[in-house]
Amino acid sequence: MDEYTSSIENFKMEVNRNFVEKAMELEPLILKSKVIPNQIVRLEKDVDANWKVIEKENFLGNETRKLGKGEAVCFDFKSHIVGYVTFRVKAVGSPPDAPAYLRVKLGEALCEIGEESNTYKGWLSSSWIQEEFIHIDVLPAVIRMPRRYAFRYMEIKVLDTSPKYKVVFEEISCTAVSSADMNKVKTLGGVDQNLAKIDEVAVKTLHDCMQSVFEDGPKRDRRLWIGDLRLQALANYYTFKNYDLVKRCLYLFAGLTQNEGRVGACLFIEPRMIVDDTALLDYSLFFISCLYDYYEATGDEEVLKELWPVAYKQAELAMQEIGEEGIIKDREGFWAFIDWHKDLNKQGAVQGVLIYTLKQAKKMAEVLNLSKEIEILNQYIQRSTIAALEKLWDEKEGFFTSGKHGQVSWATQIWMVLADVFTKEKNEALLDRLFEKNPQVNMVTPYMNHYLVEALILNNRKDKALEIIKNYWGQMIQDGADCFWELYNPENKKESPYGSNIINSYCHAWSCTPTYFIRKYLV
Amino acid sequence: MDEYTSSIENFKMEVNRNFVEKAMELEPLILKSKVIPNQIVRLEKDVDANWKVIEKENFLGNETRKLGKGEAVCFDFKSHIVGYVTFRVKAVGSPPDAPAYLRVKLGEALCEIGEESNTYKGWLSSSWIQEEFIHIDVLPAVIRMPRRYAFRYMEIKVLDTSPKYKVVFEEISCTAVSSADMNKVKTLGGVDQNLAKIDEVAVKTLHDCMQSVFEDGPKRDRRLWIGDLRLQALANYYTFKNYDLVKRCLYLFAGLTQNEGRVGACLFIEPRMIVDDTALLDYSLFFISCLYDYYEATGDEEVLKELWPVAYKQAELAMQEIGEEGIIKDREGFWAFIDWHKDLNKQGAVQGVLIYTLKQAKKMAEVLNLSKEIEILNQYIQRSTIAALEKLWDEKEGFFTSGKHGQVSWATQIWMVLADVFTKEKNEALLDRLFEKNPQVNMVTPYMNHYLVEALILNNRKDKALEIIKNYWGQMIQDGADCFWELYNPENKKESPYGSNIINSYCHAWSCTPTYFIRKYLV
Repeated sequence: MDEYTSSIENFKMEVNRNFVEKAMELEPLILKSKVIPNQIVRLEKDVDANWKVIEKENFLGNETRKLGKGEAVCFDFKSHIVGYVTFRVKAVGSPPDAPAYLRVKLGEALCEIGEESNTYKGWLSSSWIQEEFIHIDVLPAVIRMPRRYAFRYMEIKVLDTSPKYKVVFEEISCTAVSSADMNKVKTLGGVDQNLAKIDEVAVKTLHDCMQSVFEDGPKRDRRLWIGDLRLQALANYYTFKNYDLVKRCLYLFAGLTQNEGRVGACLFIEPRMIVDDTALLDYSLFFISCLYDYYEATGDEEVLKELWPVAYKQAELAMQEIGEEGIIKDREGFWAFIDWHKDLNKQGAVQGVLIYTLKQAKKMAEVLNLSKEIEILNQYIQRSTIAALEKLWDEKEGFFTSGKHGQVSWATQIWMVLADVFTKEKNEALLDRLFEKNPQVNMVTPYMNHYLVEALILNNRKDKALEIIKNYWGQMIQDGADCFWELYNPENKKESPYGSNIINSYCHAWSCTPTYFIRKYLV
Repeated sequence: MDEYTSSIENFKMEVNRNFVEKAMELEPLILKSKVIPNQIVRLEKDVDANWKVIEKENFLGNETRKLGKGEAVCFDFKSHIVGYVTFRVKAVGSPPDAPAYLRVKLGEALCEIGEESNTYKGWLSSSWIQEEFIHIDVLPAVIRMPRRYAFRYMEIKVLDTSPKYKVVFEEISCTAVSSADMNKVKTLGGVDQNLAKIDEVAVKTLHDCMQSVFEDGPKRDRRLWIGDLRLQALANYYTFKNYDLVKRCLYLFAGLTQNEGRVGACLFIEPRMIVDDTALLDYSLFFISCLYDYYEATGDEEVLKELWPVAYKQAELAMQEIGEEGIIKDREGFWAFIDWHKDLNKQGAVQGVLIYTLKQAKKMAEVLNLSKEIEILNQYIQRSTIAALEKLWDEKEGFFTSGKHGQVSWATQIWMVLADVFTKEKNEALLDRLFEKNPQVNMVTPYMNHYLVEALILNNRKDKALEIIKNYWGQMIQDGADCFWELYNPENKKESPYGSNIINSYCHAWSCTPTYFIRKYLV
């Protein structure tokens, strides 16, 4: 960490060599397959400023027409892929008397191809935009692009050749990569066509995010985030069943912690594994959930025993954050995640996450027969639950509140339901009331929608859950999703928390859970 | 040539395998050396729109300051070099949570760094502009740029990182390449400091153009042009003495000809050697000069004998272009080179080149004892000379004319002098009159200036020749030349025949001959 400074005071990474080595031994094999584009498409912006394909032309592995200065061709690879692009470019006309200069844009979504990248003014780094400029001194040439891209569309524009020659492209292909094996996924029977399609897209989303670790998004940020990991692992248990990849990620988080052994919000993978200096209270607590789910799925007591101290440490660190009244202290800044809704006060939801995860920790402590820890966890669960009911529950409104202004949000209600602060009947009523009153601070991420669906299913609202899956994730497919997106607001489809939808991730791990719901609860 | 079409009707390349194989065996060893920048500079445009260094800072192989989004650093490598750039970039701050996106500009001249490349509207391909855009996914990284550049200045601009980190550059170097060995060049004694400096820059110019062949310019076009080759070979005989490289280039031109065995204006080197579809009458004739000079320098009769048929073929093809009146037929379009002056009518000068080269051909025929060819050449020399005197000489004006409008240009006079159409006394008088009357159609290239200097030296005007070397090439050095430029007009220093001076070549073969004059005639 020598060359880095951190936003966490006296930040340092604590390394458990044993854990890191175990993770390294579980490095997965990356499976490769060759994908070729089958169409050439032409785009145009419609009256609503959405980019649409307005012309298609079959492209059967042959060569393109001749392209001169200023001309472009856009290849459609049929669906989303993650991988390495190769193409051949040759000159037609007189011998090339100047280099060829190309611009290559790759997009998961059409807007990434259509919009001029230099107009981007968002607040995530423009370096994520998948656009390259390539000089080719010697023609013909095979261009093997060295970076990994996540895309469906690839546009090549000829910025210049010379008046004496044009260029033709041929042998365009992508070596797609993933550590997920599609052959391991059982064919889904007994569901309607819409649901089958949603399942398919969900599986594809998970597939494309499974690389050397569970990445959050293969286009951006390509990191191991624990909030994503938790949902990916759940979906994985019902599809690819790659338990070792979850185990690897658990050991990585456990082996590379922040000060005091706190599990970081995410890990960087290259050039070497390190923990980011971002700490999010809910995310640290989800290490408990990840380990709990893993044990539930595998019954692997060895891993449970070995990683238990790390999980319990997260509980202890969180318990220190509880104020005198028994409620997690509210804070300024980016201290917990919950959802991207910009007005969301996170205190109430984090209180729910705390109770939810302490209960999982307690169950693991029971498996391991740790009476002292069971005792402590019990105390904190009870104290936090009582405090939530006494301090956050607004009997008049019929909702849990959050923060000093008593904000009522969807997220707070959902996490209180998942935490089982109430009885099942009261949970059911609260969920019904949530839909009825529809508090203004709603949800903007598929991630938070996942927890809503989970809460509904666990509280006798399977039909409502199914409706959301079909209306929310299903609508994304109607809107052209090949994989499920990082963000989706049906009421503002170009919404981005980053100031521009060209930087949004259109294949995002935390959106992959419909397959988990469908395969676990709905078939 | 299958994939190429040509501007020459039914163009095809005629290959002499034997010649090409001989050329291949003479492939030179490329010598490498490591060059590191010693300064960081800051530029600004002055009131005359010239880019100037306004701040310098020593850079002794250490690392740069931290650079964030929008910041740039410009390295000065001390002098012109041709080679491959490497640098290391590392992140400072939090771990990099987005790729680094860099723009790298390399310039022989400051204007190439200063001007925004996207404002270029010239008519040579913008693909020659040495500017790259690089995404770096994993930091730290060693960037080994794969293309060869010709430059002195390298600017790296950070287009984006992320708010969480900045970058630092270190270990910046260039592996300079050339097939010329500086150790072979004799130290020059007995000349004044100015002339020594001119010689040094000329030698450096030749050095940087000597690669796998004699290139015209290492930045642009990087090709083997016969007009350049002739002058490079002359300079080489008095400096690097790499006779094999000249021999290689002679065999390449002879082995790869156009229809009817015509020597092309230039050869492309990669991906395989081919002759361009450009034919220039003066350039084809200069094959004769190249072979003649080579024999003069080496006495190598074997090569003379073997390549004579190719040289004689150029004479024959040119003789077919003589009209009924004994004058080379004038033509529209780009049929001869002579000089870049946009108004120049080339007929008169080409008549001079014809007589000049036929005389060289005749001398070679004499060495080879070819009486029939001597006879034919003699006839044509006489006929062309008489025609020049009868049809082109304007007794009233005291100048040779060119074209149907009787244009009087510097180029026509110079080539008539070099062709020795007149006696020495009349040549001297013509040259004096040329300076006195200064016809409007003057010269814009160092290439044409070379032939003026040669004409002056061969006609008792050594002082005037020296004055031109000092005032023309010397003034380029005053204007900041590290190598001699493709183009130089002291009265319009930003002049470019291509619509922008950022595309001009600032290290150009045909400008390297001051060392030849100095070492052959002036010491």
